[in-house]
Amino acid sequence: MKIETIRHSLAHILAYAVKELYPEVKLGMGPDIENGFYYDFEFSKKKSLKPEDLSRVEEKMKELIKRDIKFVKKTISKNEAKKLFKDQPYKLELIKELTDKNVSIYISDGFIDLCKGPHIKNTKEISPDGFKLTKLAGAYWKGDEENTMLTRIYGTAFNSKKELDDYLLAQIEAEKRDHRMLGQKMELFLINEEIGLGLPLWLPKGAVVRKAIEDYLYKELTKEDYQWLYTPHIGSRKLWETSGHWNFYNENMYPPLEIGQNLEESQKGKVSEIKEEYLLKPMNCPFHAYVYNSKIRSYKDLPIKFAELGTVYRYEKSGTLHGLTRVRGFTQDDAHLICTPKQMPEEIEKLVRHALSMLKDFGFEEYNIYLSTRPKKYAGTLKKWEKATDTLKYVLRKLKLKYETDAGGGVFYGPKIDIKIKDSLSREWQCTTIQFDFNLPEKFKMSYVNERGKKEEPYMIHRALLGSMERFFGVLIESYAGALPFWLSPVQIEVIPVGADHIKYAESIHEEFIKSGIRSELNDKKETVSKKIREAEIQKIPYMIVVGDKEIKEGSIRIREREKGDMGITELHDFIKRIKME
Amino acid sequence: MKIETIRHSLAHILAYAVKELYPEVKLGMGPDIENGFYYDFEFSKKKSLKPEDLSRVEEKMKELIKRDIKFVKKTISKNEAKKLFKDQPYKLELIKELTDKNVSIYISDGFIDLCKGPHIKNTKEISPDGFKLTKLAGAYWKGDEENTMLTRIYGTAFNSKKELDDYLLAQIEAEKRDHRMLGQKMELFLINEEIGLGLPLWLPKGAVVRKAIEDYLYKELTKEDYQWLYTPHIGSRKLWETSGHWNFYNENMYPPLEIGQNLEESQKGKVSEIKEEYLLKPMNCPFHAYVYNSKIRSYKDLPIKFAELGTVYRYEKSGTLHGLTRVRGFTQDDAHLICTPKQMPEEIEKLVRHALSMLKDFGFEEYNIYLSTRPKKYAGTLKKWEKATDTLKYVLRKLKLKYETDAGGGVFYGPKIDIKIKDSLSREWQCTTIQFDFNLPEKFKMSYVNERGKKEEPYMIHRALLGSMERFFGVLIESYAGALPFWLSPVQIEVIPVGADHIKYAESIHEEFIKSGIRSELNDKKETVSKKIREAEIQKIPYMIVVGDKEIKEGSIRIREREKGDMGITELHDFIKRIKME
Repeated sequence: MKIETIRHSLAHILAYAVKELYPEVKLGMGPDIENGFYYDFEFSKKKSLKPEDLSRVEEKMKELIKRDIKFVKKTISKNEAKKLFKDQPYKLELIKELTDKNVSIYISDGFIDLCKGPHIKNTKEISPDGFKLTKLAGAYWKGDEENTMLTRIYGTAFNSKKELDDYLLAQIEAEKRDHRMLGQKMELFLINEEIGLGLPLWLPKGAVVRKAIEDYLYKELTKEDYQWLYTPHIGSRKLWETSGHWNFYNENMYPPLEIGQNLEESQKGKVSEIKEEYLLKPMNCPFHAYVYNSKIRSYKDLPIKFAELGTVYRYEKSGTLHGLTRVRGFTQDDAHLICTPKQMPEEIEKLVRHALSMLKDFGFEEYNIYLSTRPKKYAGTLKKWEKATDTLKYVLRKLKLKYETDAGGGVFYGPKIDIKIKDSLSREWQCTTIQFDFNLPEKFKMSYVNERGKKEEPYMIHRALLGSMERFFGVLIESYAGALPFWLSPVQIEVIPVGADHIKYAESIHEEFIKSGIRSELNDKKETVSKKIREAEIQKIPYMIVVGDKEIKEGSIRIREREKGDMGITELHDFIKRIKME
Repeated sequence: MKIETIRHSLAHILAYAVKELYPEVKLGMGPDIENGFYYDFEFSKKKSLKPEDLSRVEEKMKELIKRDIKFVKKTISKNEAKKLFKDQPYKLELIKELTDKNVSIYISDGFIDLCKGPHIKNTKEISPDGFKLTKLAGAYWKGDEENTMLTRIYGTAFNSKKELDDYLLAQIEAEKRDHRMLGQKMELFLINEEIGLGLPLWLPKGAVVRKAIEDYLYKELTKEDYQWLYTPHIGSRKLWETSGHWNFYNENMYPPLEIGQNLEESQKGKVSEIKEEYLLKPMNCPFHAYVYNSKIRSYKDLPIKFAELGTVYRYEKSGTLHGLTRVRGFTQDDAHLICTPKQMPEEIEKLVRHALSMLKDFGFEEYNIYLSTRPKKYAGTLKKWEKATDTLKYVLRKLKLKYETDAGGGVFYGPKIDIKIKDSLSREWQCTTIQFDFNLPEKFKMSYVNERGKKEEPYMIHRALLGSMERFFGVLIESYAGALPFWLSPVQIEVIPVGADHIKYAESIHEEFIKSGIRSELNDKKETVSKKIREAEIQKIPYMIVVGDKEIKEGSIRIREREKGDMGITELHDFIKRIKME
């Protein structure tokens, strides 16, 4: 039996149990969801449900499951249904909204629910230890805040107790790794409503990590002959009209900024400004097209690769925002490759190789690759789509990479490859995207002079390798549970003097680290060594250097490694050499 | 006699000359301006003035000057004036607008003008070779585009022919250095109306220079214990209401972005979004205040220095925009210093020293320093103003720096020091600004716990050392006439093979440079060596390396230096060592 069906049937059993315990309850809806199920109820004001009552409901459910209850489907007329559910106002509302003459119901022993199914045949199919009620929440009937607030009971369910336990443990682990919580503890970033939803501020320690990633990107991409650009965060509305974004994408764009509104006054002859409209950029493409068009390009100049750490703004509904991984303002490691048809296969191969080698540098060696092909509505010619899609497939096969095909799932402007990395909890995170664009070169009339001296439209490939600085940082934090690799740690070494007598020596050690380009921090506060170590562990600092009488006498240092503890005494310069090798 | 008075009198002589040559001309106004004067005229449609007629007008003026014409002031009634100027509609309009009963006129021989003066006594005071008519332009009467377009004649005037010649030469020199023209020739940046007024795009070669400056800043500031931040380009409107910018500064701000306009629909119960208003940031301050407030700060944590390369957007009238030096979007090398009263003098001294040493690193060793003191309206206490102003003075004196005081010229929130650099043409450019802020710490309730365990408001100092990346780059281009110092040159070395046989050797040389971290470019196009050298000179590349048969045989390179020409033959690694020293 499919687990989704078991979950849906458990929702019915939940409603059955609640109805047994609270006979006056009114029933809302109860579907299966990811990892579980819920059911919405309206309790009478006198007898409402409290979190501590959940275990009683759960016990009742187990009791029902053990009774081997059958699920029987029956089709009845709407009139019969209305009679059957005459005490259930929410069910009546649903029946009225149905357009068919007949409705289907499920009978499970003494409990009847309006439902299309499918369901299990018998509660024997449910593992009584494989589910758990997890929480209570308020939920508007049909999700509409004008409606009554109902009580939603959530449950999670799997095929066995083991699966359930694994899931609950992974949940606890994921909570411990929640980058929003760690970001606060480790002082990495700040997001709050006063500043603006989905608009992160990078605190000093987070900014250090971002700078390390940016430096890495700059080196990597310059080596690959990318040219860097800086472009503004706003641009004339016309740019986005030309690109087509304003027509196809404006739900995700901030509204236009209108300046020179004193147009009216200008008509009276007071002000000579005319009206201009600007948009916050949701992507960098039109600017890159202008840079490309700023001079005549020959086939000999191609491929041209423009890279930018461009901060873009996209309007997302507040409910969908989540820490750094779903924001409204983010900095893409964006680039546009412009090449001839001949160069295209080699460039795509280089891109995929480069993406994988960069992800590996951050410790990500497991990923799922998706190839998305032509949707029904598309820009560009069929021939170009075929050639581009074939090239993507050819490269993935050549590199012996497994991939799934999302047939028809491409964006309207071209086929694409997405690489989603898998973290240590096997969660998938979208990072790299490599997309052909058959739309913009045409819209912005981009061309190059080919071997025969004629103007030709080049291929253009958008790509982001890490995705965005914000999301990638969030993924790094979650994946490493905050314990970032040495080169990405905000503070790499914490120098801890045992007492006041050891501060001077500690300072000299700290300065040696700084001179060697290591991000060292000296904790000379009047606190116990154990407290300082605890604080450094919370900050996930890779190494703690403790120095006291013995170390001063020997001219040595004592090393503690994050999560591993004491690693013994060593000589400072040996240690510096060792970590530089890392 | 003051040169301004001479210039104003020359405007009258210009009008006199034009009236002699074009008796039907109608006269507008004619003031003195910086370096010269102008006069606005309405010519009859039949007999208009053309640029080639300017020399005839100039000749006539010289002739008049040599007649030793007196300037005589007379006060007459408005009625008399109306009669006197009955043929001059613009003068009549001016007379009507005057509120006094009497008006003053100046009589110069056969020419009478409505004028308050002052004027010279006799044209003997004018050097006939010290002035020149420079250009014609259209100008609306009173600058209002609803009015008639008049013809404006511009002139420039000095006390002697030598002064005039010096000025005209400097003008030609300045034109050659115009960063807008050089920026295009050298492919450094792109500004156009389609993208948006005042919104520069940094082309690859400009971006390389910006990155070199940013890397320099990062190193310099990190050494001085600055902590780096990244903050968004938009923020909740409330931030700017709290800071006071929205009240005092909104003329220079872009209008608010309103999102969740589906408020109406939400009232119908369809959408649960509420309205939010965002503003493009005109400065980074409120974000830095939030970062400061993100944890409790002790006096032991101070001084705290937050730095950001923050791109801000300020709305400027389109007419005031100028290349990179006056834009609407620019990236400040911004920082906020937060310190205790005790720390303040030392921090200010460090700041001024650091500013001057950084400007020196860019080759600017001449500057004018301005101290601006308390205006009539001000925030903060008188005591704080005095202490801060005294500290600024103390530091300037201690460092033996000459400065001018702009009494009452400070911004409302605190006194400041401005450092304006002088370029090779002795032009002043505003760069460094160091400003106290008594407003924001109060508005954002910033505090630290002092030695006695009590909350206290810290001192906050805004400062930008270079000013903005855009303006500073413009200043660099103008000051060096594009020939940037080696470390700032977009391309540092151009490798030029003499013929096809020398390309391979040239490539190996080019790669050696790249390996050594030098920005080398290989020009292997099928062009003559002299054409390649000419192109490299236009691009202001510091060194050109020419290699042919002789160099291959010897394993050597031939060096040409920008503007200096051939510097002889040398060994590659010696040369790399030498330029690395530079």
